[in-house]
Amino acid sequence: MIPIISIVGKSGSGKTTLIEKLVPELIRRGRRVATVKHDVHGFEVDREGKDSWRHKKAGAHTVVISSPEKAALIRDVERDLNLAEIRDKLIQDVDLILSEGYKRDVQPKIEVFRKEVHKNLLCRKKDNLVAIVSNQKFNVGVPCFHLEDMKGLSNFIEKQFLTLRKEKEVSLKIDGRSIPMTPFVRDFLTQTVKGMLSALKGCKTPGLIEIRIDGKEK
Amino acid sequence: MIPIISIVGKSGSGKTTLIEKLVPELIRRGRRVATVKHDVHGFEVDREGKDSWRHKKAGAHTVVISSPEKAALIRDVERDLNLAEIRDKLIQDVDLILSEGYKRDVQPKIEVFRKEVHKNLLCRKKDNLVAIVSNQKFNVGVPCFHLEDMKGLSNFIEKQFLTLRKEKEVSLKIDGRSIPMTPFVRDFLTQTVKGMLSALKGCKTPGLIEIRIDGKEK
Repeated sequence: MIPIISIVGKSGSGKTTLIEKLVPELIRRGRRVATVKHDVHGFEVDREGKDSWRHKKAGAHTVVISSPEKAALIRDVERDLNLAEIRDKLIQDVDLILSEGYKRDVQPKIEVFRKEVHKNLLCRKKDNLVAIVSNQKFNVGVPCFHLEDMKGLSNFIEKQFLTLRKEKEVSLKIDGRSIPMTPFVRDFLTQTVKGMLSALKGCKTPGLIEIRIDGKEK
Repeated sequence: MIPIISIVGKSGSGKTTLIEKLVPELIRRGRRVATVKHDVHGFEVDREGKDSWRHKKAGAHTVVISSPEKAALIRDVERDLNLAEIRDKLIQDVDLILSEGYKRDVQPKIEVFRKEVHKNLLCRKKDNLVAIVSNQKFNVGVPCFHLEDMKGLSNFIEKQFLTLRKEKEVSLKIDGRSIPMTPFVRDFLTQTVKGMLSALKGCKTPGLIEIRIDGKEK
């Protein structure tokens, strides 16, 4: 699963600016980053009159525009998605997801704080705060990086969030819901599936195995 | 797997107009539709200066904007994606994907033809042409619907493409590649996985089962 970190902070603290400085440093280290921004006011993604705009206007649930360099998508949702849902429904092919805001989500948070702008921190350790980026020192039980220290912050992110990905990952979902597994069940499932597949062509040394079974009786 | 149909036709034949008429009829029947449009010239999805625009500019591989009613995404791709890749990487929660264009893709095609505009059809049956929508009758071995007959065309699409979805679906991917299975292997895998899971809490009557195992030795 792609790890998610929320960049939080009060209004004017410099969340977007931090993301603008952090993303290039992570890219320099060979990481692919996705960002997520919440927009309560809605937004226009396409221009009136364009074919894709006409598709959406006609009622398409999802519209994709594809080109040789980039792809864009706009889709309906029934309610505000949380960050895990955004990851599962929309994001692939990246190493890390950084959200701007989403302070009420359960994901780990890095707070940006500038002493000129605010007096108190927005988050505490119990809110899943994992680090602070600030021009002021804090002693609240999480690491504190200077506003310009993208190297230190990236080292921290890589160590805490990007090496975890290298562990063995097994997930089981039933009807979209993640099913928790004990280590015994996880190993039993893994070894049984790998054992079965080892007899199949093209499955001798499987990397990522994905099985999807629509088990409903039709 | 979500079925894909390409709406093809020569320039000016009325592909976008057909999609604008077909989508509402499919929605009326309770179907959710995604559309895909190719754009060789590239496109701007967001406005200069907006936070999400700044994220992309900073080098984010993927940028998501999320609101209570819709979500939008723009991401880098290494090359033009084919329709199956677009489905697998980007599209969820719909019953059918209609592409505008993509005449060179392998997916089934419906050609729009207006006698005022062109002399000859663009596709033949061997190009995976499955139907024609036109104000002229054709006898080329596929059904031909009038330009205004969205009821007839929707009946055809539902019968040919949307009832198939109700059959049992089992897929296996190794490192993103689909592995073909004989009916025996598919049944063996299905029954073994369902048998294993039946002992787990919350898995008594599984609908959609999704298992993901990162089998690489780390």
